[in-house]
Amino acid sequence: MNNGLKHILEPESVAVVGVSPNEKNLATVIFKNIQYEFSKRGRAVYAVNPLYEECAGVRCNDRVPSSDLVIIAVPASLVKGYVKQAEQAGAKAAIVISGGFKESGGQPLLDWKPRLRVLGPNTIGVVNPHWGLNTLFLPHVKEYISGEILESIPDPAPGDVAIVAQSGALSITMLDDLTHLGVGLRGLVCTGNSEDISGEEAIEFFSEDGMTRVIAVYLEGVKDGRLLMRAVKRAKEAGKDVIAIVGGITDEGRRATGSHTASMIRNSALFTNALKQAGAYLARSYDEAMAVAALRSKWPTSRINSVVILSNSGGAGVLASDELGRNGVPLAEVPQGLIALRESGLIPRAASVKNPIDLTASGTDESFLLALDELCRGGAQGLIIIATHYPPGVSGSLPEKISAKIKSSCPDVPVVAVEVGSSAWSVAYRDGFMKSGIMSFSSPESAARALSGLYALPRISPFFAEATNEKASVSAELDEIYSMVEDAGFSRLPWGWINGEDDLKGLPYPIVLKVQAAGLVHKQKAGGVITGIRSPEEASAKYRELLRVFPGARVYYQRQVNGFEIRVGFVSDETFGTAIDIGYGGIYTEKLPHVTYVAPITESGVKSASSEAGISIPDSLAKAISRLSFIIAGSGKFKEFEINPVIVSNDGYYPVDIKYVL
Amino acid sequence: MNNGLKHILEPESVAVVGVSPNEKNLATVIFKNIQYEFSKRGRAVYAVNPLYEECAGVRCNDRVPSSDLVIIAVPASLVKGYVKQAEQAGAKAAIVISGGFKESGGQPLLDWKPRLRVLGPNTIGVVNPHWGLNTLFLPHVKEYISGEILESIPDPAPGDVAIVAQSGALSITMLDDLTHLGVGLRGLVCTGNSEDISGEEAIEFFSEDGMTRVIAVYLEGVKDGRLLMRAVKRAKEAGKDVIAIVGGITDEGRRATGSHTASMIRNSALFTNALKQAGAYLARSYDEAMAVAALRSKWPTSRINSVVILSNSGGAGVLASDELGRNGVPLAEVPQGLIALRESGLIPRAASVKNPIDLTASGTDESFLLALDELCRGGAQGLIIIATHYPPGVSGSLPEKISAKIKSSCPDVPVVAVEVGSSAWSVAYRDGFMKSGIMSFSSPESAARALSGLYALPRISPFFAEATNEKASVSAELDEIYSMVEDAGFSRLPWGWINGEDDLKGLPYPIVLKVQAAGLVHKQKAGGVITGIRSPEEASAKYRELLRVFPGARVYYQRQVNGFEIRVGFVSDETFGTAIDIGYGGIYTEKLPHVTYVAPITESGVKSASSEAGISIPDSLAKAISRLSFIIAGSGKFKEFEINPVIVSNDGYYPVDIKYVL
Repeated sequence: MNNGLKHILEPESVAVVGVSPNEKNLATVIFKNIQYEFSKRGRAVYAVNPLYEECAGVRCNDRVPSSDLVIIAVPASLVKGYVKQAEQAGAKAAIVISGGFKESGGQPLLDWKPRLRVLGPNTIGVVNPHWGLNTLFLPHVKEYISGEILESIPDPAPGDVAIVAQSGALSITMLDDLTHLGVGLRGLVCTGNSEDISGEEAIEFFSEDGMTRVIAVYLEGVKDGRLLMRAVKRAKEAGKDVIAIVGGITDEGRRATGSHTASMIRNSALFTNALKQAGAYLARSYDEAMAVAALRSKWPTSRINSVVILSNSGGAGVLASDELGRNGVPLAEVPQGLIALRESGLIPRAASVKNPIDLTASGTDESFLLALDELCRGGAQGLIIIATHYPPGVSGSLPEKISAKIKSSCPDVPVVAVEVGSSAWSVAYRDGFMKSGIMSFSSPESAARALSGLYALPRISPFFAEATNEKASVSAELDEIYSMVEDAGFSRLPWGWINGEDDLKGLPYPIVLKVQAAGLVHKQKAGGVITGIRSPEEASAKYRELLRVFPGARVYYQRQVNGFEIRVGFVSDETFGTAIDIGYGGIYTEKLPHVTYVAPITESGVKSASSEAGISIPDSLAKAISRLSFIIAGSGKFKEFEINPVIVSNDGYYPVDIKYVL
Repeated sequence: MNNGLKHILEPESVAVVGVSPNEKNLATVIFKNIQYEFSKRGRAVYAVNPLYEECAGVRCNDRVPSSDLVIIAVPASLVKGYVKQAEQAGAKAAIVISGGFKESGGQPLLDWKPRLRVLGPNTIGVVNPHWGLNTLFLPHVKEYISGEILESIPDPAPGDVAIVAQSGALSITMLDDLTHLGVGLRGLVCTGNSEDISGEEAIEFFSEDGMTRVIAVYLEGVKDGRLLMRAVKRAKEAGKDVIAIVGGITDEGRRATGSHTASMIRNSALFTNALKQAGAYLARSYDEAMAVAALRSKWPTSRINSVVILSNSGGAGVLASDELGRNGVPLAEVPQGLIALRESGLIPRAASVKNPIDLTASGTDESFLLALDELCRGGAQGLIIIATHYPPGVSGSLPEKISAKIKSSCPDVPVVAVEVGSSAWSVAYRDGFMKSGIMSFSSPESAARALSGLYALPRISPFFAEATNEKASVSAELDEIYSMVEDAGFSRLPWGWINGEDDLKGLPYPIVLKVQAAGLVHKQKAGGVITGIRSPEEASAKYRELLRVFPGARVYYQRQVNGFEIRVGFVSDETFGTAIDIGYGGIYTEKLPHVTYVAPITESGVKSASSEAGISIPDSLAKAISRLSFIIAGSGKFKEFEINPVIVSNDGYYPVDIKYVL
């Protein structure tokens, strides 16, 4: 358990620095919020400000008093002094709300290692409805132009969804949207500039926390890549889901994060793949992340294998089907009972009773309910209901009726609704679904994508492995390197030095002859490789030719093998350590897609990585590559390591050329 | 000009079949709508129903009277009789609203070729606000559960956006959403089962129509692929934009379209590529299509080269930047004046004044307006405004103020707004932007994607070309085929039959020897190909070896060339005719991405197709491939034609192996 975050989210006492008689002052707003909730629970809250005797109706401390958590909201130049006071007072943790540090071109706050944990600076802090703690300094209600006082930020109910975000504004938005999607909050941690406590630590905290079920994450960077992966993997293994949005993955986005939270993702392909590898669900957009998190919180253990679309709009049904198809979600077979319903005229005779079911514009409330009944009885596992409101037979109470029907007939079936359109009716009706407890969407694709997320979540299985300490016997000698690769499960490509024509007898023809000479990098281009040699006689002639063209070079043979060529490379990444790169080999290496993951990688990870690169490889090769990734990552000796090509033939996987930098 | 659609969209007289005294009857609803509008314009509307003397308050005709357009809404079994009556009465066109034909497993309506044009069956018909014609049979208002009468389908204003859709429900939704996005309608054509008039004909009509500026299309299939492409290309060349959503492009979606409009896309990659090739904008979702169509209608001639993001939410700014990045839209440099504003404290000192500009939670209405002023003066070309409502300094009148500022300072700059969140304030405020004439989105990615569409539209240039009649001299002889390919701009790979060892002298060594024998398909695998032969002596030995292993086979030589290998193939598609397929060649052909477009294809089309497949090729090779596509498509002689591999070397493009089926 991460103690820093425990003190931050569940402090027994809090001191707020910067409180003043001014009601609009940030620290005052924070103090009053906490005071109200904490006093009900009998916990202590202190105000700190040396300029006043009394502020916000209480006595003002002129120094930070002894307390678990110190919240600091003062001008940037004063922050350091108060963190030091908090240290001296024995505080366990501090939240620095103040901005004006690295994110706006200034210096970092922490130029020493403090004896307490620090969240921020440049953070909106935390929210923990289970503890009555909320450090948001923004108003919960605001006057609208109409003069009405409208809700601006909702007060989240206690629940099981955790929010971890580097961005303050986005944290609030996530809280707002998730609350309105009917989700209860376990806690929100905004890490801001993440100078001390990082997003990965916050994820680690929630991964070990009994009240957390879903962790919704917004990341613009990471300090400790391996910790991030371990935390995500631990969450997944504990039966939780991590739903991540990553900001700054294009060049445009990356420039933006630099001046936002001073974070920056160096290798965005590796970053997002590392998250996937650890078991996170990578949302393709903000909306998708919120919808999937909310659906999962509602159906935490659901495992759907197929989806039924029940619609009265054929076109919208098609678009939803396409989106399911793009996400690999199968359409279910639908029960025969629907045909009987149609024959009896209880659902329209013009209806199509294949999936997607299309009740057409003649469909009524009643036909939706009858069809639903049949689908529930038939064992539907996931439902998309597209009940366009336009037809005369569809009433405003259909959402409520559908909700009641599902509660009585198949309460465990995840269901989402679609109403496309913008007329007053559409807006009210879409809202009607939300009020009846059915998440509703304004486009068929977004509904299908959200339900696809629910399909995908229980199927995600981490394929990241911890490095083991490999024996340090890895040598710099090429021969031993080949043995190491062979130990991993690659084949031994018969080869040997040729020291005279006698050596050419008894070789495993056909062979290739190659020269080895200092400074000769592109031996193939230089004519230093001769393939397809079938006999000792031919070999003798070629051997003499090579010695003539490359005087003084050494010549070696390799058995000639045919097959297709892949490349397996390893590089060292600043954030994630050793990474593996898999792609096509030989002359195509640079032109073709290749994928990068963090090493070591499991066998199934190798399989999925290569198929992402468009390569289908045998299980035993995947096993060898995985094993090699353990050796390379575990030895910690190689800056770079590359086998290119590995010839994948019917009788083995031959490493033809190995290059490495220690 | 397509006369059928002219009579359908602009009839001087209309007869509606099926009208009855029942007010809720579909035909009655349609009749009354048209009657109301037409009587104002002095045009004739007739009711037809042999069962009644009087219906819907007028005299009922017992047969179809003479009229331009006949609208039929009667049970399926009666439809054919009325179409025949319409023919006899000399009608120019008919709209068949009735369903119950192919889409629900029945027979097609048209088992003869009628003397009038037919729209449908299974269509909701057309809407033309410029003509007072609207055949929708659904109510414009409906009672909601609250008892309120709410708008259900808006009455669109006359405008320049055309809607062409196969799906009835989706047509209405498009009309609803586009109208609420502030768009005026040129006309809506729903083709339903498209038995006679097809979506491509409707697009052709609007491509030639003076009032149309944007054509929003929903397609589930096509009858005449080339007509579709010509129509889209013509629209684009006339300065119009075609924004397309395609339904049924996955297996799941395809099964769905089969039972929806009885359409089916056979080769979805070719279908969507054909649309792109002709100049259509392929929307990735329904929402995107609507937003892009609406933006384009508002800024029909805008050409933006970069975008500025002005925000008070760093995270949302990052997500918008990433989405712009994914769509290839550059972020603009922002004016120096912003720094001065920040220094003077007129915008918050903590603000980041790089693009995306982040005013932070300290930003106020005033700072937004000052920054906007500076951006307008600095020549901003496209704007995304992310003005999260949460900060205390942001008021409900900001949308209006921003709108006024833009009208006065840079009225021609396309602008969209983002407000993420679901609280009452968010909803009202997002609506405030719409009411002020600024399209607002609930996620940063959707706003960025919509503006990216506006960036992309003027950059789309069709790369589809019409086939020309190539001289029919194309022969079935391999020698002549090689000459044909050489004429297109490929190199001549020196080769020749070897009829004896004497023929091996004076060849352009190094060479390859190959055998040609009936039934020998995989000559390489069988050992019938020997590469790397460097001298006449070596060649003699290999020649004898080949004759020994393949007795009776013919042997030929090719000069050995090195380079990378691509494949250029042609197939004949049922819908689109000759199609070209480009990808990597040799052993990688089947494993790697390849792309299919319709032939002929322009040189720039070849360039973009190959880069889609991950291949970068020289201009002169693109020219040769384009030229070859003209020859193959123009000759009409080949069922299949494949060069695999073409070796792309420094001194030429060598077609090594050509296979074809006449």
